[in-house]
Amino acid sequence: MSGGAVFSWPVRVYWEDTDGGGVVYYANYLKFLERARSEWLRALGQSQAILAVDPGILFVVVSLQVEYLKPAHLDDALRVSCEPVRDGRVAVLFRQQILRDGPEPEPLLRAEVRVACLDVQSRRPRRVPEFVP
Amino acid sequence: MSGGAVFSWPVRVYWEDTDGGGVVYYANYLKFLERARSEWLRALGQSQAILAVDPGILFVVVSLQVEYLKPAHLDDALRVSCEPVRDGRVAVLFRQQILRDGPEPEPLLRAEVRVACLDVQSRRPRRVPEFVP
Amino acid sequence: MSGGAVFSWPVRVYWEDTDGGGVVYYANYLKFLERARSEWLRALGQSQAILAVDPGILFVVVSLQVEYLKPAHLDDALRVSCEPVRDGRVAVLFRQQILRDGPEPEPLLRAEVRVACLDVQSRRPRRVPEFVP
Amino acid sequence: MSGGAVFSWPVRVYWEDTDGGGVVYYANYLKFLERARSEWLRALGQSQAILAVDPGILFVVVSLQVEYLKPAHLDDALRVSCEPVRDGRVAVLFRQQILRDGPEPEPLLRAEVRVACLDVQSRRPRRVPEFVP
Repeated sequence: MSGGAVFSWPVRVYWEDTDGGGVVYYANYLKFLERARSEWLRALGQSQAILAVDPGILFVVVSLQVEYLKPAHLDDALRVSCEPVRDGRVAVLFRQQILRDGPEPEPLLRAEVRVACLDVQSRRPRRVPEFVP
Repeated sequence: MSGGAVFSWPVRVYWEDTDGGGVVYYANYLKFLERARSEWLRALGQSQAILAVDPGILFVVVSLQVEYLKPAHLDDALRVSCEPVRDGRVAVLFRQQILRDGPEPEPLLRAEVRVACLDVQSRRPRRVPEFVP
Repeated sequence: MSGGAVFSWPVRVYWEDTDGGGVVYYANYLKFLERARSEWLRALGQSQAILAVDPGILFVVVSLQVEYLKPAHLDDALRVSCEPVRDGRVAVLFRQQILRDGPEPEPLLRAEVRVACLDVQSRRPRRVPEFVP
Repeated sequence: MSGGAVFSWPVRVYWEDTDGGGVVYYANYLKFLERARSEWLRALGQSQAILAVDPGILFVVVSLQVEYLKPAHLDDALRVSCEPVRDGRVAVLFRQQILRDGPEPEPLLRAEVRVACLDVQSRRPRRVPEFVP
């Protein structure tokens, strides 16, 4: 994750993710995006449960944009990337992508997810911690 | 709901509920069952949010049995019934059914859901309130 | 729905919709948006199942933007609006809003969802049917 | 998986799985159970997509029983076991458990899931393939 490497996380598509159209339901890709953001945080040695206590912050999605390029199917092995950049003092912008894994990975979805850092008690904006690049 | 009438609640099947098999995903019927239990409570003039404060109780599913008879499909209009009976001092057994609505309603699913009444603070068993028949 | 009236659909928040933060999970609002689009279609006397056979089309989300303004909570009564406008020959742009119902409705979420009209067989773009305004 | 070893699959709890009670929503455990069954099949070198073509079968849940012992929380690392036994010629009974991983794994849930083997075309019962023990 240093030197420009982008964090990514593997996701397998199960029945629960698909819909009657035989592809992943459009809202469920947002779950995959969130798993990658959670695992990115974990990979930094951080825990949302601990951050909520010390320093008393939580992260909340305030806006997002998604482009659906191609559908994912049952049993697909996906890879979800996560590139965070600070967006002012109190927000982080995650550039994310979902690829179908394989010898030639295929881009399926591109997203930008804006996340605000809030005080657990007051729900007011708080400064994003130093561990975010 | 008095005199033997059974409470029921209408549910429409949307894309979110279906899976790649073209039918409702097996776990999602449990959401429909829970909606009917929530609406049964609301129909009694009760609110889970208020019960959590006064008298300080919450309801938790401790076991269930489900029989899947026939699948539901996209756009189906369903009806979910809910017949609660006390099961000892601290639990309620809900007999529930999901029917496909229509001139001749078709039974799709039968379930028994056992729910315990717990103290919000201690998570110990508490007496089921009087409003449960 | 004529004369400028905007179509909207009521949605109740259940346990299934919430997450450990005590609010509706960010992906689940997309389910509410899709329910309103499905019901808008049904209100026009159209059915996705029939459209898939004659004239053999289906609608697929190709991009979306969401602004999360305020969170929805368990038991909230929401209202989801749906304003479709043609976006070229083969796409529809849905402007949608989620409000908390009440004497003074509170806007919780704003979204723009771009949906393409595809041929069921070839998955190539098809002209949007006339019933879309 | 031979010699009495029980197949199991790791599952991480994310925000999507939790509800406003701060624990995993009761229906979502069924997703975890299904992931373990899907991975058990994959570990045998089988694929549901291929089985649907040759020999033209699919598996459908016909009944289940679940006992909820303790709740799972955000970030928990779970392990989901899967012990299939033939149940007549046309069904398989899966005994499954969900444990919280750790030095002393804690049982959270026990389930029995009965799955029928059906012909893809006729939806009539078919003999369970030989690879099921």
